[in-house]
Amino acid sequence: MRMGVLGSGMTAQAISARLAELGHDVVIGTRDADKLRGWQSSNQRVLIGTLAETAAHGEMVFNATDGAGSLNALSMAGEENLADKILVDVSNPLDFADGFPPSLTVFGKDSLAEQIQRAFPMTRVVKTLNTVTARVMTHPLEVADGDHHVFISANDVEAKSQVVDLLRSFGWTNIFDLGDLSTARGAEAYALLWVRLYGAMNTGMFNIKIMR
Amino acid sequence: MRMGVLGSGMTAQAISARLAELGHDVVIGTRDADKLRGWQSSNQRVLIGTLAETAAHGEMVFNATDGAGSLNALSMAGEENLADKILVDVSNPLDFADGFPPSLTVFGKDSLAEQIQRAFPMTRVVKTLNTVTARVMTHPLEVADGDHHVFISANDVEAKSQVVDLLRSFGWTNIFDLGDLSTARGAEAYALLWVRLYGAMNTGMFNIKIMR
Repeated sequence: MRMGVLGSGMTAQAISARLAELGHDVVIGTRDADKLRGWQSSNQRVLIGTLAETAAHGEMVFNATDGAGSLNALSMAGEENLADKILVDVSNPLDFADGFPPSLTVFGKDSLAEQIQRAFPMTRVVKTLNTVTARVMTHPLEVADGDHHVFISANDVEAKSQVVDLLRSFGWTNIFDLGDLSTARGAEAYALLWVRLYGAMNTGMFNIKIMR
Repeated sequence: MRMGVLGSGMTAQAISARLAELGHDVVIGTRDADKLRGWQSSNQRVLIGTLAETAAHGEMVFNATDGAGSLNALSMAGEENLADKILVDVSNPLDFADGFPPSLTVFGKDSLAEQIQRAFPMTRVVKTLNTVTARVMTHPLEVADGDHHVFISANDVEAKSQVVDLLRSFGWTNIFDLGDLSTARGAEAYALLWVRLYGAMNTGMFNIKIMR
């Protein structure tokens, strides 16, 4: 499948490499391609594009840009290039204006996922993977043999189903359907607990499991 | 031990009953004692007091009031009645101004626990138990035989240790020390994910386990 991954950081790199490994045709998109040249030298199956080229390339597009800059980056990617496509939003709206630990730029009665959906009404936004670090997103079996949960939120049931299939191809077996896209408010707010768990354990190689 | 439980809702009732069952000398405190008469008829070991009487009675005091009203309730309980005591804050600053699902009244760069600590500097505030429903707080073994985590945050290490002992007496075996009281920002933000998990599962009898 043709995949576009927007972003140039650790998350965008991890997702791009994993998608390429799984046989997808991947373009990673950024405002500054030079940031990715070194990484690409060992990931030559992934091509580098502009944000717009990357969105145009993808049948499915990932938002792996910094959450605080996502709306701007997606605007540069272009509404027409994202129309009718699934946008897998894995970002967190982290606000580092006052340093670490971060707050969030949007919270409570709204979420970044919903902001994106409102800004791109023709795009089918699916929120997932934002509750774990990049390596766990793409290699869930490396934490407790995969015995933990990833969440998914979307208004479009068919889009959600396609992303569930993709998550399974990454190795996810416990996929918790939170409901419609407004439930992303919960998954995004969890980022503030995640940073505290990270602080206490000094590693991002963890996740939570829902116990009943 | 003399215990004071501030609040009259489901959480205050559950904690009061559990403490009495464990042999503690418990007073539950509320602005409106009539709300508790029916409940007390089957919990006669728990006495009812005003907020101030309850705080004065307790060697350890629980804040189980509605989070949005906690600062006001604690003010009525009286700074002098809370001085030098451990205040176990189990509340969540839920904001139901726009109905369900709630937002939070404080978030990100501050927390209700820290607001309380600033307002009552002589009190040793310990945040815990707020990430589970009342029945799980007091009977953790009823979910997955106790195989899940409760969090604890406090600036005072000795106070934290005493509350850990109390949690163990409730049945908790997996107590995750998040760190100082500012880490309550994470545990409180999780409430927004909790309400979505509750919505998806239609039960509060669940919790999360940290998997590594």
